[in-house]
Amino acid sequence: MTDLWQNAMDHAVALAKKAGSLVRDAVQNDMKVMLKSSSVDLVTKTDQMVEQLIIDSVKEKFPTHSFIGEESVAAGEPCVLTDNPTWIVDPVDGTTNFVHGYPFVAVSIGFAVNRKLEFGVVYSCIEDKMYTARKGKGAFCNGLLLNVSDQKEISQSIIATEFGSNRDTEVVDKIFSSMRKILCLPIHGIRGVGTAATNMCLVASGCVEAYYEIGIHCWDIAAGAIIVTEAGGVLMDVDGGPLDLMSRRVVAANNKIIAESIVKEIDAFTPLRDDAPPETKD
Amino acid sequence: MTDLWQNAMDHAVALAKKAGSLVRDAVQNDMKVMLKSSSVDLVTKTDQMVEQLIIDSVKEKFPTHSFIGEESVAAGEPCVLTDNPTWIVDPVDGTTNFVHGYPFVAVSIGFAVNRKLEFGVVYSCIEDKMYTARKGKGAFCNGLLLNVSDQKEISQSIIATEFGSNRDTEVVDKIFSSMRKILCLPIHGIRGVGTAATNMCLVASGCVEAYYEIGIHCWDIAAGAIIVTEAGGVLMDVDGGPLDLMSRRVVAANNKIIAESIVKEIDAFTPLRDDAPPETKD
Repeated sequence: MTDLWQNAMDHAVALAKKAGSLVRDAVQNDMKVMLKSSSVDLVTKTDQMVEQLIIDSVKEKFPTHSFIGEESVAAGEPCVLTDNPTWIVDPVDGTTNFVHGYPFVAVSIGFAVNRKLEFGVVYSCIEDKMYTARKGKGAFCNGLLLNVSDQKEISQSIIATEFGSNRDTEVVDKIFSSMRKILCLPIHGIRGVGTAATNMCLVASGCVEAYYEIGIHCWDIAAGAIIVTEAGGVLMDVDGGPLDLMSRRVVAANNKIIAESIVKEIDAFTPLRDDAPPETKD
Repeated sequence: MTDLWQNAMDHAVALAKKAGSLVRDAVQNDMKVMLKSSSVDLVTKTDQMVEQLIIDSVKEKFPTHSFIGEESVAAGEPCVLTDNPTWIVDPVDGTTNFVHGYPFVAVSIGFAVNRKLEFGVVYSCIEDKMYTARKGKGAFCNGLLLNVSDQKEISQSIIATEFGSNRDTEVVDKIFSSMRKILCLPIHGIRGVGTAATNMCLVASGCVEAYYEIGIHCWDIAAGAIIVTEAGGVLMDVDGGPLDLMSRRVVAANNKIIAESIVKEIDAFTPLRDDAPPETKD
């Protein structure tokens, strides 16, 4: 089956490149913005158009494969990971950045078989950086091998995270409380480029020691997750247990020491799972 | 005198390019990190070497001009803005980023005459973006004219700020309190690339509506300040009064409406001024 997945990965890279160039073009032009869950949760015509392009192409080339995509799920498609080969896609990760022309917008394509990630492709299209990783074969950016940072001291680390798009008081309380405790460990600083996929690629590149967030979705992190592990990093849940792709919680770090230093400080909460039955969702 | 300042500006651009290429090379190599005011306030050999290169070149070409530079002031040189033509320089803005290879590091060169900024040059050297502005002549990035965002709704805005390097409880309290109030206005999001100079250039580019920070120094913001105003933006103190370059407080925004929306939410505090007498400093 190895050749088949390589074939799928080559296709994912080509699709990400094509999708990314559409996104980059759209940044130059005015765009139609719509609201999703709240006034700060945005979606654009580009998100929907690019996802449809990716779906159509995958269905034509790999008709038996499954597909989980941000916009399809928003439109009512199921979000359940089965053993079937599954493409997990965010056509525009960083939609808020995209709307503002802030220079970090990524096309994120993860691919899982038997619920395990086989490859990941993140194309940071404004920077023109193509991040790729295939199980057991390493992680790359524009063809250059990536390695996580070798830092073991949390006090010498930069941690990436985001404020997210949820403005509910209890959620904001926990987000700020976690950030503050981590900042005052102390650490060198907190950063965040506004896309989960790119934040994870920055962990893989060694520019930040770790990234954590609660509230992200499987399509934001699937591709980044295998890019991090193939660059030598680790993944876990914010409670220190194993990563659950559907739980909307992630810690991605250069090593276990740094990951566990962060886990200790995070005020965890439990968003509705990505694979929750539709009747439990708004 | 117009020609003389154009001459000085051309020299600043050439110096920023040369300095930036040294900084970019250093990012590829291991670097010696030293501590400045605390374990999170870093300085490197590159900061000092690049500043010396800029000082030597300015002194040779413009022997009557004055010079305020981050590393010179750290070494005990005075930090007083007089009417004399004055170069205000940060050789490496974003030293923490630099140490980590995080892709935003800027060379910042501002130039004031009669205490008014005449031009500013910010070279974001890893991105290879050269931002320039001269009084009355507009602001540019790699030769393309810059314009601030035309957004007037704070709820549709992205605001840039930083956590800074001060970890004192009272300071961290105010930084988090301000951020939280601004985030929950609500706004689209908070961003920050880890350098004041580049954050200000992002305001000038229209990618974020505003940037504010307390604790920065005159060399972080001098060049960015004129780049923002020449792109159509406004500057003020965090209390809504006029910007004071030496006060270590800044709001840079696309327009007065957005600036004033932020000012209302900022829990202001008053760091020791850049031009405070040396005996009042640690």
